[in-house]
This record gives sequence, structure tokens and C-alpha cells, in this order.
Amino acid sequence: MSNPPLDAGLVTRLRRMLGEEGLLTGEAALRVYECDGYTLEKARPSLVLLPATTQEMSRSVELLHKAGIAFVPRGAGTGVSGGCLPADIPVMIGTSRMQRIRRVDIDNRRVEVEAGVVNLDVTRLVESDGLHYAPDPSSQAACTIGGNVAENSGGPHTLKYGVTVNHLLGLELVLPDGEVLQLSREAGSGGFDLAGVVTGSEGTLGIITSATLALVKTPQAVATMLAVFPGVLEASRAVSAIIAAGLVPAALEMMDALVIEAVEAAYGFGFPADAGAVLIIELDGLAAALDEQCVQVTEACNEQGASEIRRADDPRERALLWKSRKRAFGAMGRLSPSYCTQDGVVPRSALPQIVERIGEIGRRYKLRIANIMHAGDGNIHPLLLYDENDPEEVARVLDAGRDILLACLELGGSVTGEHGIGIEKTELMPASFGPATLAAMADLREVFNPRALCNPHKILPSDRHCVEVTRPRPRGGG
Amino acid sequence: MSNPPLDAGLVTRLRRMLGEEGLLTGEAALRVYECDGYTLEKARPSLVLLPATTQEMSRSVELLHKAGIAFVPRGAGTGVSGGCLPADIPVMIGTSRMQRIRRVDIDNRRVEVEAGVVNLDVTRLVESDGLHYAPDPSSQAACTIGGNVAENSGGPHTLKYGVTVNHLLGLELVLPDGEVLQLSREAGSGGFDLAGVVTGSEGTLGIITSATLALVKTPQAVATMLAVFPGVLEASRAVSAIIAAGLVPAALEMMDALVIEAVEAAYGFGFPADAGAVLIIELDGLAAALDEQCVQVTEACNEQGASEIRRADDPRERALLWKSRKRAFGAMGRLSPSYCTQDGVVPRSALPQIVERIGEIGRRYKLRIANIMHAGDGNIHPLLLYDENDPEEVARVLDAGRDILLACLELGGSVTGEHGIGIEKTELMPASFGPATLAAMADLREVFNPRALCNPHKILPSDRHCVEVTRPRPRGGG
Repeated sequence: MSNPPLDAGLVTRLRRMLGEEGLLTGEAALRVYECDGYTLEKARPSLVLLPATTQEMSRSVELLHKAGIAFVPRGAGTGVSGGCLPADIPVMIGTSRMQRIRRVDIDNRRVEVEAGVVNLDVTRLVESDGLHYAPDPSSQAACTIGGNVAENSGGPHTLKYGVTVNHLLGLELVLPDGEVLQLSREAGSGGFDLAGVVTGSEGTLGIITSATLALVKTPQAVATMLAVFPGVLEASRAVSAIIAAGLVPAALEMMDALVIEAVEAAYGFGFPADAGAVLIIELDGLAAALDEQCVQVTEACNEQGASEIRRADDPRERALLWKSRKRAFGAMGRLSPSYCTQDGVVPRSALPQIVERIGEIGRRYKLRIANIMHAGDGNIHPLLLYDENDPEEVARVLDAGRDILLACLELGGSVTGEHGIGIEKTELMPASFGPATLAAMADLREVFNPRALCNPHKILPSDRHCVEVTRPRPRGGG
Repeated sequence: MSNPPLDAGLVTRLRRMLGEEGLLTGEAALRVYECDGYTLEKARPSLVLLPATTQEMSRSVELLHKAGIAFVPRGAGTGVSGGCLPADIPVMIGTSRMQRIRRVDIDNRRVEVEAGVVNLDVTRLVESDGLHYAPDPSSQAACTIGGNVAENSGGPHTLKYGVTVNHLLGLELVLPDGEVLQLSREAGSGGFDLAGVVTGSEGTLGIITSATLALVKTPQAVATMLAVFPGVLEASRAVSAIIAAGLVPAALEMMDALVIEAVEAAYGFGFPADAGAVLIIELDGLAAALDEQCVQVTEACNEQGASEIRRADDPRERALLWKSRKRAFGAMGRLSPSYCTQDGVVPRSALPQIVERIGEIGRRYKLRIANIMHAGDGNIHPLLLYDENDPEEVARVLDAGRDILLACLELGGSVTGEHGIGIEKTELMPASFGPATLAAMADLREVFNPRALCNPHKILPSDRHCVEVTRPRPRGGG
């Protein structure tokens, strides 16, 4: 379903304000924006705006608001739940031209950066001062700070360092009517935590134009270990044992046999061929403490039947180990033409059960499912492998993914660990929250977005018609 | 100004539902509830309700809502910003009869407790399992979890462990119309962070009836040190040096000469008589790391001219040191008939400047001001000493307190570190936030509290008339 054409006068006014680099209309230019990392659904915007300043952003949004035209913000488009899919939304507003570093305050360990600044570039800016920006999604070489705030992004180091909101000191937000808010989130600021509400709101409460981020001192020393297990069950028990020992690893990641197969083919780290599952355990802090912690980790893993435990000896080996993990998704191509990344979370103690359920679901739907997990947080990423040219297999993938998420709910978890609801999981909101809570969420959104022009159809179920896709998409339960 | 009498039929209905223990009307009974820790203003409710269950709470609120009667929630009344002052509010609803432990899950490190459960009792519940509840306000032997959530309470260990919202996994909230919401805050739950918005909302969005709290593993070892300095300036620099060294102390507290004088007289710890300021530095974690960290702390303190550095050798000495800090407020009576605790925050690097400004303000207003600080967070607690029988001195105390908070704002901080806005600081909200942000906060509150019946006149400035107090209270700037 394509959008009705936009008023030519409005487009002219916008072009005059933003300049040629700030406004895209051509078919070829717009194609880039038709989906994010959630590739199962695509929709083309009629217009893409790329304001260069907060004032241009504010004025653009104000013009659209006055004309009653819906719009969707977009960072780098690395999201995987369709959060910036322009479905039934004529205008997309990208932040890629807002990349200024506004302020660096090393003494107080904070920076203010515009929304289009890339996550990893924040760390690069301050690493020579011994600081870094902790939330490190796997997409950090491409994803933007604005997107990180919208999704409350985490990453492998969430276990110790928390997610975006834990490092957020302030936001500059353009409301859906164009008004600009400066929101502070300093300790105890007073009043209501508006910046906290905006964090994780997936672009539905306005457009973030800049953020003040807290920085973390880079630890004195790091120890990265690899432990190999006969299977995911044993690895899960080792995870529990490590946490129970009182350790707070910086990261605690699990990969199963299918993932190991793919990354070994792609990167040749040297994983054992018969590994059922591996844990990557990273500890950081004072050098004096690390050896002791490594001993405790080794004991915990041995007690759970680890066949091998290695410690990366040098930065090169550590980098390769992390490459295997952070680029694991990309390596899936070794196994299958397409894959679908699911994202759910269960209480850590329920990891063995969800792993069993995933196995059953894979068998029931005749699908291969590879497993990557932020095991310390109970955040699972089942990778459902399929061939996108087989519509029947696609349908099974969607059903299996939904069943996995419902299993997460049954085990006391939730339907998203970190990738957000986007457009992908709106149907699962009623299974996750009672009607009163959903109504409260809708009311909250209406405070910021009373005309529902800013990123409609996301998060909460809406009456939007099903967008035609080239593959059948099953609706409701089944 | 006293409240108009309540409809007798309503009171009868409430008494029938709640029973004799659940409803208080007598003069003597109500006097207890006329103020919290902010004693500069008092107001007596006409009725106090003490529901025993969520259902009773819900039904009570529903009846009041239908009758259009304003109400204010109250935990233990330990707050110091007047958050539960029943000014122009006929009905108070206390949570003291809701003290059930609903669920304990040691494996997943969480508990669900009702709002009236005392903070320290949560830790006592789980400490034999090697866990504790981290947010530890000085009032923790009395304050309740419901109050902690409403105020987003911290405490000395905030520096390392964060505040209440960092440990909050879920809430049960009774909305101002009586509806009950179950709000989850698990990692990535999805949707909007309603529980996060309620945290720190100071009882203005509804009444918390229960909370699911995350527990933290009790560290293997603790090292508590005392460092003595010639003055607050040197101590502040040592604070910066400790943080810059990459350490994350569990606590980093400062007390100045006046405080030391009081606590020494009260508790006889053995502070040196000529100490200008002391730092209490607590480190926790693995035993193997602590000695190294203590060495780094010692170096940092010596570089800033510490005259003495001690490490508490045993639990008894550690307990006495902490008693000196946690009961410091109570010891102020040694110096003065009354004192007013202020609460503000500045960027840590600005601690020396705010200390200077406090000194100037003390001289300007001819007041003695003692200083306690959560120095690692830049959270200051100036204690303004006065005689409450001297109305002119009281007026100077209020002006001086306000000037200190304005100085915090000027230095890039804020008007509350952790005690909240309550009724005490509503006039400072316009100095802290722009009109658009205040409007957004008001709109947010209206989502939850559309008839403004739940704890009105708190946080945001209202049109409420000045409540008569026995001492003059200056209005506006000065």
C-alpha cells in the first residue's frame, strides 16, 4: 500500500529549509530506507528528510505536524524489530547529518553528542583518556546514539554495565509538534523522569536530537576466557554457578554447536569441532583481582563438566574471540541463505528450560535453530535458519518465533530482551501486559504524541491494515 | 487551614470495609500524621486509612475518587521534603499494615514485598543466603519500600550500587481511581517504562502496594577506611583523585569539622579533635583486590595532604565508624536545638566550589552550617543549625537553604540529590526546568492522576495558599 502523494507546496517549503542534501525524493534514493534489520517487512517512504541541526529538525517536525502528516525517525537502520519501518507513514526523518560532538567533559566523565553519532565513535573519542561508553551492541560500528536511546540498547557487557538508560544523563528531544525539550536525568534531578520514559520508547514519543552520556573508566585489566561444554544444559548450569559464586563478569555469552560451526568456518578461531556449547566469560577490573576470579570461573565450569577452559593470552586472541561472537550473526550465512534473529528473555535460572523448549519448537516446525545468548542476563537470541524463497518455511519461522516468545512469557520472562517491540511484536503486547497497563501506556504516549503522527503503529497494537508482503504472514494465534 | 468535615456516610462505608484497626479519626491518633521529617510545616488530616490488602487499598481509593476527595499516601513518614504532608488534603492512606513478604526467589535474586515492609528488613530476610538489598538510606531501620520507590531513594552505597530504580523489577500500583496495575521492569520488558516513571514520582501518580526488588550478592570482603584532612577542600580533591584512579568505592562519604564535633561527642569514635574534614571510604569485592585498592586510596589521600589514614580492623570498628555517619543527623542535637537538612547535588568536580559557596552563605546569613556529603556522587547535605524559637533565624535558614540550592543549579547540578521535591522545593522547579518541560511533567501526571486527587500540591508548583505555620515563611526570591 503506497502513501498518497504529499502536497507539493509542503515539499517545496521543506526543500527550501533543508537544502538539496537534506531532502530525498527519488525512487532509488528512497529504496535504501524501506526496511531496517527486520527484513521480513518493507515499505517505502514518500520523502526522507535529513535535517542538519536541532532547529531544522524542530521546524521540519512542526511543518509536518501542522499538515497532519505522519513521520518516522531513523538512525542507522540497524534495529531488528521494524522500529523505523515506514509502514503507512509517508515521511521518514533521518539523523545521519546530526553528528556533532557538542561537549566533552572528561573530569566529570560525560559527553554530549548529537543523535547521529555512531556508538563506537563515542568510545573512540575518549579512549585515550582511559574512558569508554559502556553499552556495546553488536552493531556498534554502525548504530547511532539516537537509536540506542530509542531502543534502550544493551550488548554483551550489559551484565556488568547495564543498558543505555543506566548511562543516560540527559536528552534533547523534539516533540511530535516540533517543540524542543531539554530533559535532565542527573541523580535526583527532581520531578518526573521524562528522559527515562523516552528511553526505550522506540521513537514513538518524539525525535531525539542529542544525548548526554556518562562514560566509564576503562578497567585496568581484562581477562577473557573460553569454556567448552558437552551441551547448552551444562553451559547454562555453569552460568548459574558463576553468578552464584558472587562474580559479576563483564560479559557472559553462550553460543551453541550450530553457531560454533558457522563462526569456525568464517573466522577459524579454533573452536573444538565437537563442542556442544561454549561460554565466553569476560572479567574486568583490577589486575590483582582477576587471577582469583579466573580461578573461581574455572572451578565453576569444571564442576559443570567443561571439557576445556582457555584464557585468551593476548589482545589479538581476545579480539578474535570477540569477533567470533560479535560477528556471529554475519557468519550464519555459512549455514543458511536467511536467518531470523529472535530476542527474548527468561529468568537466568530458567535458561535450561527455555533451551529445551527451543529444541522442541525446532523439531515441531522442522527448523534448525542456532542459539546465541547473553547468558548472564537470560537474554536469548535464537537464530531461526530458513530459505526466504520458500514461503511455507517462512511461515513456519514466524510461528516458531512466536512460540519461543510465548514460552519465554510462560517461564516468567518477556517477549523482548533488548531489540524492542517495534512493529514485529505488537501482537504480543496483550500477552505480556494486562489491559489496564496497555491503556496506561497508550495514555502516556498520547501525552507526548496526541495526534499519533510520530511513528504510529509501533509498540502498541493498532488498527493498521496488514501491509502486503511478498510472503504470507500468519495473523494471530496458531 | 483545616479541612471541611468528611461525609459521615463515606466514613461509615470505609470503617465497615477496613475495620477498627484500618481507620483513624481521633485527634490524638491523627496528630502523629501531621508532618514527616520536614518539620517546618504541619497539617492534620481528617482521616487516616490503613488498608491491610491491595484490594482494601484499591477499594478505599475508588471510594475517595468517586467522592472527589483528595488523599495522600504515607509510608513511615521519614521523608524530609514534606512529600506526605497532608496540606489541604483531607485523607491520608498509610501502608503500615501492608507488610507481607509475597515471594522470595533466592536463585534469581529477587523478592516481592508489600509497600509497608521496612527497608532493612528486606536485607535481614536474605542475608543468611549471602544477599542483600542495596539501597540503604540512613533511615533504613524505619523507612518503607513503598516510600523508597516513591522517592527513588539512595543512600551512602549509591555510588557503587545505584538507587532504587536500579534495583526495581516490578511494581503493583493502585491508580488514583482505584484501578490496580501490575508493572514489570524486567530487562527489555517492552513497551513504556511505566514502573520507571512511577519511581521517584513522590506519591503523585498512585499508591504503590508492592514491589519486586533485585538483590545483590553480599561482597566477599569489605574494607572501610577513614582519612583525615585539614579541610573540606583537600578532602574534595582526594575524592576526585580516588575516582580518577579508576576505583569505584562502595561508599565515599565526607563529614566536616562541625559534624565531627557532634558525632565525637555523641559516639566517641576517636576522631582527631583538629580534623577539618574526614572521608569514610568503603571498598568491597574480592578480598584479593581490596589490599591493592586500599593502597591506591591511601596514595590518593596522602597526595592531598591527609594527616591520617586508618583502616577499620574488625567488624566492631567498622560498625562504629558507620554509626558515626548514619546517625550523624541525630547527633546534631549536641550543637543546636534544631537543624534543617538540605539536599542538593553538583558535578563532583564542583564540590570545592559548592563548599566555598556554602561557607559564604553561612557567613552572609550568620548561620552555622555543618556538611555531610555523599561525596562520590556530589550529593551534598548541608545541615543548617538554628533555634526554632527564633523566627527571624528560621527565616534566615529558609533563605540560606534556597541560596545553596540555587548555587547548586549555577554549578551545573540540581536542587535535589535524593530527598525529592515534595512540598519543600516546588518553588524551585521553574529554576530547574524550562516551561515546556514543566508542562510535559504536568501532562504526564495528568495521565495517571487526571482529577489531581492523589497527593496534590507536591513536586509541581500549584495555586495552593500558603499554609499558616507558627513561623514566617518567605515567598519567592530574595
